[in-house]
This record gives sequence, structure tokens and C-alpha cells, in this order.
Amino acid sequence: MKQADVVIVGGSAAGIEAAITARKQYPSKKVIVIRKEERALVPCGIPYIMGTLGSVEKDILPVAMLGNAELIIDEVTSIDREAKTVTTAKGGIIGYDKLILATGSRPVVPRMPGVDLSNVFTIRKEIDYLEKLQKALKQAKDVVVVGGGFIGAEFADECRKMGLSVTVVELLEHCLYLNCDEDFCISIEGKMREVGVQVNTTCRVKAIVGDQKLDYVECEKGLHFNADVVILALGVVPNTELASDAGLEIGEQKGILVDQYMITSDPNIFAIGDCAEKFCFFTGKPTAIRLASVASREARIAGANLFQPRRRRNQGTIGVFGTMIADTSTGVAGLTERAARDLGFDLVIGEAAAPDRHPGSMPGARELRVKLIFDRSTAKLIGGEACGGVTAGEIANVLAQAIAAGMTANDIAISHIGTHPALTASPLVYQIVNAAEEAIIKLPR
Amino acid sequence: MKQADVVIVGGSAAGIEAAITARKQYPSKKVIVIRKEERALVPCGIPYIMGTLGSVEKDILPVAMLGNAELIIDEVTSIDREAKTVTTAKGGIIGYDKLILATGSRPVVPRMPGVDLSNVFTIRKEIDYLEKLQKALKQAKDVVVVGGGFIGAEFADECRKMGLSVTVVELLEHCLYLNCDEDFCISIEGKMREVGVQVNTTCRVKAIVGDQKLDYVECEKGLHFNADVVILALGVVPNTELASDAGLEIGEQKGILVDQYMITSDPNIFAIGDCAEKFCFFTGKPTAIRLASVASREARIAGANLFQPRRRRNQGTIGVFGTMIADTSTGVAGLTERAARDLGFDLVIGEAAAPDRHPGSMPGARELRVKLIFDRSTAKLIGGEACGGVTAGEIANVLAQAIAAGMTANDIAISHIGTHPALTASPLVYQIVNAAEEAIIKLPR
Repeated sequence: MKQADVVIVGGSAAGIEAAITARKQYPSKKVIVIRKEERALVPCGIPYIMGTLGSVEKDILPVAMLGNAELIIDEVTSIDREAKTVTTAKGGIIGYDKLILATGSRPVVPRMPGVDLSNVFTIRKEIDYLEKLQKALKQAKDVVVVGGGFIGAEFADECRKMGLSVTVVELLEHCLYLNCDEDFCISIEGKMREVGVQVNTTCRVKAIVGDQKLDYVECEKGLHFNADVVILALGVVPNTELASDAGLEIGEQKGILVDQYMITSDPNIFAIGDCAEKFCFFTGKPTAIRLASVASREARIAGANLFQPRRRRNQGTIGVFGTMIADTSTGVAGLTERAARDLGFDLVIGEAAAPDRHPGSMPGARELRVKLIFDRSTAKLIGGEACGGVTAGEIANVLAQAIAAGMTANDIAISHIGTHPALTASPLVYQIVNAAEEAIIKLPR
Repeated sequence: MKQADVVIVGGSAAGIEAAITARKQYPSKKVIVIRKEERALVPCGIPYIMGTLGSVEKDILPVAMLGNAELIIDEVTSIDREAKTVTTAKGGIIGYDKLILATGSRPVVPRMPGVDLSNVFTIRKEIDYLEKLQKALKQAKDVVVVGGGFIGAEFADECRKMGLSVTVVELLEHCLYLNCDEDFCISIEGKMREVGVQVNTTCRVKAIVGDQKLDYVECEKGLHFNADVVILALGVVPNTELASDAGLEIGEQKGILVDQYMITSDPNIFAIGDCAEKFCFFTGKPTAIRLASVASREARIAGANLFQPRRRRNQGTIGVFGTMIADTSTGVAGLTERAARDLGFDLVIGEAAAPDRHPGSMPGARELRVKLIFDRSTAKLIGGEACGGVTAGEIANVLAQAIAAGMTANDIAISHIGTHPALTASPLVYQIVNAAEEAIIKLPR
């Protein structure tokens, strides 16, 4: 029987980051990562394989990152918590002192006629499967993406870069409606349409239709869209079977239940990433946010807590996210206005737009718009959205730090900001600061 | 006699921002801005007039920003603090309830033979003067920039974009040595040389030589550099004559002395921007940092405190700055390693480099390097530097928020970060987080 101080089940973003952190924090400990895949993908890069990168080979997570941790290609089939061992598909038994579950998630497959037809794909993190998808796309003319969340929107954008005729079908009122507020969604949808993607919102798919060969996607209200390929981008469900079979508790949002130290209901087992339950930074309640950046953060927390359980504490998930559709980037941190209202917050909103370089005549300057969402009772920032050029991604990170620090509108209005003509807005109109100033005049004195 | 609730002397970044803030915070108050210049320049844009923008006209601060504040083109020549009036060069007398001094700074002119020769320029914020400089550059072949701080380096880069043969002469060991640590300076100098700028450091200018026409710049050790134009970029001195003539106290760093609310030694007079004394966020001691972003921040503080003196408090200047030389951007927040050691801090340094997109095969990806400087005794972040592509500017702002919030290395290692293939590094190698992880292993447990 093999034995390690730390056994990590799963070797995507979360598993690899946990191994790196464990080795860094406890250099004398032996760490084993067990994963099914010989090679794993950079998860966020998956849509970009299709058009921008052009091949799966360009989106491989380098195994060298694991350093001195041992990688075993196998599948863990059960956990014996009493014996502190895991059993694998190939019949191996590996003993652990601490176990980290990073088993990830799998795509939601809707119950709908036609989902089993050939050329109907979900978005699996599997090399062969994605190669098959890419090959199908190369032979296609019409593609329908079902689900207009950010993954669906990114896939649609990549397919149109491949020269395909692309239709997005989204059940909600807007694409990306769980990520951004309406005004931001509308401008993203505008961009999608501008580059030739057909966008259909408030639109329910009834069936995928075909006889042998895929034919079309049938929606309510008599709409149907021709399809040589259908991509189902309807979100993910956490992989928790291994955990629940071992008797670990599962949370309300269907993730493996964990505490603030990423420890499950068994003190020797941690869970991180898509398979683990998340708690909202603002309410402490379970939340469905699942992102590679969140997984990586949880891995850093778990990895540090392995043998000294309270080195790092998870204060909950803020949720910081970026996307780029056509030439327009969007960054979001924390709650949207809609989500915050649904949670019962009384809000004050501040907005500002300005060129992202200064003066506005600097080459490459374009408008960048920021919306900030404050809790009226405390004046604290609880969410922010930015839309514009490539800096919108890091602007979301500026906002995330402000949220985490509990900064109020007044703090942000006089926050320390650096500016440069080629890199940022002018200090006189720096969007985050000016949006805070706009909110302040609406706040009680 | 004219009368206003608020009189602001100076209408560059600080004065305009103070007027905007005053009007926003106290909409019923009458605000007058008095400045010499009919039109003012975007200060940070001045180097870019030369090559990138191509004309002074593209770098004008829009007067519309002043909104309902009144603009008077005139020069304030004295303050009568008893009568609460200012007198102008045109003979006007204007009464104030609150007075804000935003008189700015002027270039240092060294005592050196030849500084009065024609075609020897400093960097004045004056339209006609800069037009004259630009005209001289257009007729020149060889340009010598004396002073390799960031303004000097930016001017040098712009002159080479104009096709000129450019030499930078810097007294210190490195260009930008007051802004960045040695390794970052070396890579900026490398970029300058790569694009054809001659860089001479540890080099003292003895004289500017010419007979009628400018001829060359003579340095110690027998070096001399041909020059059709010389640009002196040796920093600024605050304009405090008006304040000192009125009996206001002047600080150690030669700025008008102010408290945490930007109030001078007269409770009815505020001072902001380059003319005001600055205090270091980390030590509380006077500091020589002068930036448009700092001026703008002080204006927001003063503007809010006018009639309710403690709405906004200045906790001191962190100093956040960005520059771009050739195709390489640098962002800095807080103390450099060198400055922190000089102040007596015991430090722990963490560094990390990674592509600024992910996977690294994404088009346009380039390396972005981050260095973080922590105070060993508290593990708090006190400085950070980033060098790479265009996002380095906003990354400095992420760092600034972390510094202001008092985040420790551990806080940063598990900070909430959003990532996206086209916008940021991978979450597994996000530079700020990984640099914090590197520092942590050197910190006492």
C-alpha cells in the first residue's frame, strides 16, 4: 500500500494549486495528486481553443507546475475514512493523513428530446471530447449555443471567429444575466449582434430535432434555428458522489459541505473548488458561484491549513469575474444590483464613464464604464461592474480589494490611485472614484 | 468687490478637481476659480504632445469640467487674510469665505553654465512654451534630456518617436531610481536602449555649451553629447510665494504646510496639489512625492472639507504611479525596497512573473513581473512594483488598495481575484498572489 501525508483527488486548477501550496507550506510532507486525465486543460481557456488558439494542445495545464508532488493517473473510486485510505479504479490503495477532494464539476445536461443526438455537445473538460467538438465545428455551418451565460457567450464568440453562423438561445431576459446587471448585459448583447451572432433571449428550448443527423433547435413560440452543431452551456453540477458515498455532508447548493477552513464534516478531509460548497461573502449563505479563480483561492486556503488548521480562513466568496466578447471586456466583482436587491439590500448606485487613457486623444483610448453598488446602511461597496477595454479585468480586481477591505463610498472617493496617459483614465475622471462620488451625493449625510 | 463662498487659486488638475468637488458637496455655494492661463494642459499628457499626440491642442483640459464654477483668467498677487480677500494682477479684489491654494509647481532650473542658451527648455505647463519646444524639436537632430526620472524618460521616448537622436543624462545610478527598484530601472533602461535612446547614468552635467547656437552638453569624465535641443527634467519646486507672503507656514519639503484635512495654518485657507506639503502614509513624515493623481485626491479631500472640516481625512500619501517606455509599462505603489530600507524598515520581498494572459499561448500574452515589499514586523504590504503590458497601471491600483487596507502577505495570498484568458494571468500564477506566497515562506511563522 502506497502512503502519503497528503492525497489530492483531482488535478485541475484546484488540485494542482492545493498541491503547490501544500508543498510550499509543508516542504517535508509527501503529496500525491490522483487524477483521471493524463493531461489536464486550462479550464478558463476552453472556449478559446475553438477559434483564438485553434487547438487543444495550446490549452494544456503544464504538469511541471506540480513540482515535487507525485502525479498518479487513475480514478479514485472510494474513500475509507476509518482506515484513511482511497481505492482506485486500477485497484490501488493509497493511505493518507490528510485528504483533499478537488473532484470538480460536470456540465448540466437538460432533460430534453434530442440531447443524445450526435453533434450535440456539452462543455466537458476532456481533451478528446473537445477535439471532437472542434472537428464538428470545422465541418459545420450553423451552430446553436443553448445558454447565454459567460461560457455560452464566449463559445458563441469563438464560433463566429471560426466563420460559423451562430445563434445563442437564452432562457433569461438577457445573456450573462447572472453575472452582470441589465445595462451591461445589453451592451454585451449589442457587441455580440454587431459581430454577427444572433441573440435570442427569454427563449425556452423545447427540443433538439434531427433524424440521424442533427437538424434544428425548436423553441417555444414556434421559433426554430438550424443547427449542424449544438453546444449546451447550461452550467455545472458539482461532482460529489465520492464524498457522499463516504458519508460526507453535502450542502444546500449541492457542494461538499465545508467550514471556513475548507474542512468537510471529516476533520481529515478538505474539499475545494467546484465540488465544494461556497458561502457568500456578504450574507454567509450558500451560493452557486463557481469559478477557477475561486477554486484556486480555496486551494490556497486548504493547502495552508492541512497540518495547522487555522492558518488561513475563508471569509466567503466575493465572486470576481471577467469576460471578453468581441473587442469588449467586462469585469465584475461582488454582487450585481439585481442580486443585491434580491438579497434584501437597500442600495445606492454610482456610475461613471470616461476614456481609459488620457487625454482622450491618446491612441487606443476607449470609453470604460464603471457602476458601483453600495449598501445604503453602511455605505460599503458590495459590488462593481466595469466595461470597456482590456483593463476592465484588473479594474474588477481593484474593486475586489475595495470590497474585501470594507471600503465605503467616501473611502473610495479618496482612495490612492495611480494614473498614466497610456494606461488609465485621467485622475480627474478615474471611473471608480467618480462613480463613488456620484453615489455619495445620494447617500444620507 | 466680487465675493464668493469659495475662491480657488490655480486651475490645473488640483484646482479644477477642487471646484468640481466643492460644487458637488455644497451645491448652494458660489465657487470661483482664478488662473493665469486661458486654457490649461492635461499635466500628465505633456510628454505625449511631442510624438504621440503631435500637438498641444490634443492635450487641453476641457473647461466644461468646471460646470457651474466661475472661471476668471487673472493672476492672484496677494491674499489679505484679515479681510478675507485676494487681489489680482488686473486689479480685481475678490472676497472669499474659504480659499483653496492650488498654485502648483515650476521646474527646477539648475545653476549651471548655459542654461540660458536658446533651445534649452524646462518642462513648463504652458501652451506657448511647449509649442516652442515642439517646434525646436522638429528642427533638431540631436536632443539631450538632462534628468532620467519618469518625466525625462517619457520625453526621451517621445523624442525618439519623432525620429531624433536622443541622449539621457542621469546623475543617479539609474533612470527612474526614485520611482522603482534597481531591477525594474534596469529593464526600463534596457527598453530605452533597445529603441535607440542613449542612456548615461551616474553622469553629472557640468555645462551646456554653445556660442549663440546650442552646441553640446558637457559632463564630468570628459563626456560630451551633441545637442540641438536640451530638455531639463530635474523635478519641480512648489509655488508657495503667495502663501508665504501671506504668512502661511511652509513645510520641510517646501510645500505649504497643511493638516490631515488639507487646512493650512489659516483655518479658512486650504492648500492642495504640488504647492502643498505631503506626508508619507507609512511614516507620517514629510515626503517629496508630487503627482497629478495625488493632487486630485487632495482636491477631493479639501473640496469636501470646506464647510464641514472633517468629512474627509488624508491618511498620507501612498504614491501610486505608472509609466510606459517603448512598449513596456511599469506601475508602482507605495515604497520601493530601497526607500523602505532607507526609512529603516526590515523587509521581506516576494517576486513572481507570469504571462499576463492565459494560457500563455493566448495572442498578445507577455510576461508581467510583480515585486512586493512587506514590513517584516507586521507582514503588511508597504510597496509593490509591476512591469509588463498595459495592465501594469491598474495592477498598481490593485496594490494600492491592498496597501491602504493594511493587507498582510497572507491576506494577499488568499485575496479575491478575478481572472480571464484575454485579460489577466491564470489564477494559478496570478502575479500579486504568487509574489505574496513567495514572501510568506520567508516570513516568521
